[in-house]
Amino acid sequence: MTIDDVIKGSPTLEAVARLAGVSRATASRAINGGSRVSARAQQAVNDAVRQLGYTPNSAARSLVTRRTDSVALIVPEPDERVFSDPFFARTLHVVTNVLSERDLQVVLLIARPNDDKQRILRYLHRRTVDGAIVVSHHRDDGLSDEVATLKLPSTFVGRPWTSADQVSWVSTDNIDGSHKATRLLIERGCRRIGTIAGPADMTVGQDRLVGWRRALAEAELPDDAVVHSDFTEAGGIEAGRSIMRAHPDLDGLVVASDLMAAGALRALAAAGKRVPDDVAVTGYDDLGISEHTDPPLTTLRNPITEMADQAARLLLEQLDGSATAPRRVIFTPTLVRRLSA
Amino acid sequence: MTIDDVIKGSPTLEAVARLAGVSRATASRAINGGSRVSARAQQAVNDAVRQLGYTPNSAARSLVTRRTDSVALIVPEPDERVFSDPFFARTLHVVTNVLSERDLQVVLLIARPNDDKQRILRYLHRRTVDGAIVVSHHRDDGLSDEVATLKLPSTFVGRPWTSADQVSWVSTDNIDGSHKATRLLIERGCRRIGTIAGPADMTVGQDRLVGWRRALAEAELPDDAVVHSDFTEAGGIEAGRSIMRAHPDLDGLVVASDLMAAGALRALAAAGKRVPDDVAVTGYDDLGISEHTDPPLTTLRNPITEMADQAARLLLEQLDGSATAPRRVIFTPTLVRRLSA
Repeated sequence: MTIDDVIKGSPTLEAVARLAGVSRATASRAINGGSRVSARAQQAVNDAVRQLGYTPNSAARSLVTRRTDSVALIVPEPDERVFSDPFFARTLHVVTNVLSERDLQVVLLIARPNDDKQRILRYLHRRTVDGAIVVSHHRDDGLSDEVATLKLPSTFVGRPWTSADQVSWVSTDNIDGSHKATRLLIERGCRRIGTIAGPADMTVGQDRLVGWRRALAEAELPDDAVVHSDFTEAGGIEAGRSIMRAHPDLDGLVVASDLMAAGALRALAAAGKRVPDDVAVTGYDDLGISEHTDPPLTTLRNPITEMADQAARLLLEQLDGSATAPRRVIFTPTLVRRLSA
Repeated sequence: MTIDDVIKGSPTLEAVARLAGVSRATASRAINGGSRVSARAQQAVNDAVRQLGYTPNSAARSLVTRRTDSVALIVPEPDERVFSDPFFARTLHVVTNVLSERDLQVVLLIARPNDDKQRILRYLHRRTVDGAIVVSHHRDDGLSDEVATLKLPSTFVGRPWTSADQVSWVSTDNIDGSHKATRLLIERGCRRIGTIAGPADMTVGQDRLVGWRRALAEAELPDDAVVHSDFTEAGGIEAGRSIMRAHPDLDGLVVASDLMAAGALRALAAAGKRVPDDVAVTGYDDLGISEHTDPPLTTLRNPITEMADQAARLLLEQLDGSATAPRRVIFTPTLVRRLSA
């Protein structure tokens, strides 16, 4: 049984085709979003569909094709964060561009990990999308296990906590990036280096912390000055204040994102610390903010455009059926020198 | 035939219930996202589903219930605009909060009106969502006719161009708001008042232009100084430059959004004009930006939180079946005085 058989069973497809002045096959393709339809025929069929109030039985069709031609971009984060962190806007932009090559509709799902976890898992369970790209995955959101169990075509941006060998993912070497930043501070003479780390329930938070710790261990320097924050600028201000209160002798600060580093710079300025002379600071991401802080941030370039592009292409391969096994693609971060360190 | 009959037909629901240690009815409710399930039972059922790799036949279920428990928030705008204009973040936040009361998943669809028009109409046509809230509707996006034809539960934020008597919508009296702003400038003595209008293919752009024109006609003042722009700050800078070049004698400027007004203030400052002494300026929206411009903007308060809340509640009434006819709800804008006029 093919999709056309289902549609042919409908008594009104003929009427749509007749009114539109096209063949039944063309009408069927136009209704199902086929690409081999001229703009004029598509318009004529749309008009006829509207005029006749024709509704193709999409549920019956979905039984047969199991295709919705839509893909979810899932961000388990508060919407305030999604709209204030340029990481998400950039990712959505790139993913939408790549998927539009295949005429796939992107739907953005934003959900606080705790509140809406069951709801988002149910949404995936119902297969109202053909696949999913997950960014900003947290340890307890259940997303990686869920897509692995459902065998839903998917890509994670950032290493998943669990089922990492059963799903495809794209990441950057966050341990290496944070190690590079910390090495830079050590080389410029810092001896008391703290870190504002990302959330402990995200692999990106964990890995950047590991890189910092590793560089300090190699240099036999203390690694006790750690504050976790939430990747926001407000979080960075608070973390900056609290780490300077606990460790007033800090001369270096490795911050796990540029937004948090922008906040930390404000806290340092308010405490009368000069950057980099009193405290050298590094950020992470290089998404535009780092050029506009005072002073501009030395940071790690996170290749977000490339990662999002790759994530979308890995997903397309799964949708095509051309990818047979999960894949991982790891990008190398590069250091961008500005004035803060 | 009920949803439970479909689910009961599946040979493995019993296994899920047995493994989870709950009744078959509870397992069915948990799988279908019913609300009368304890958190513990829900977790046990989820674990059992995962362990057994059980997949309820969601396509068959959708044939019966035609419910997806998801609602689309549709924004036919470039993603750059969606992420830079606080109007959209606020709307999404409010809509998500209201719909989460009924455990509905919000999916955000962002689409350039021209590129993706057919794709988004097809998505709606497939009824992969139970309903839609449309913000930032444009004349040629086809959305109001489409949801009217599909009889898809929906609400528009802003008056639709067509089918306005067949769909529900929420708006603010934009003619009145712009009329108030223009009256204010006239009362403070301005005699040569221009406007930076919104896009001509949006009712909000058209109505704010009409209010400006009406106030000028009443005062028998000229209404030839009009530049249309795109509701962005960059657009406001350019429009401000071009209107001052064409009409160097302007002493008042009614701008159809705060973001555009922020841009216009930059253009005026660059041209050496003092605000409000040389040129008095009004904005529209009062979403935070207006407090931080130099000088702070006199503007119209657009009750976005109330509108988005109302839009979501009108949609819920349609989904419940308690709303039988399309409704419209119009809010009154209020003038907020600051320093720019």
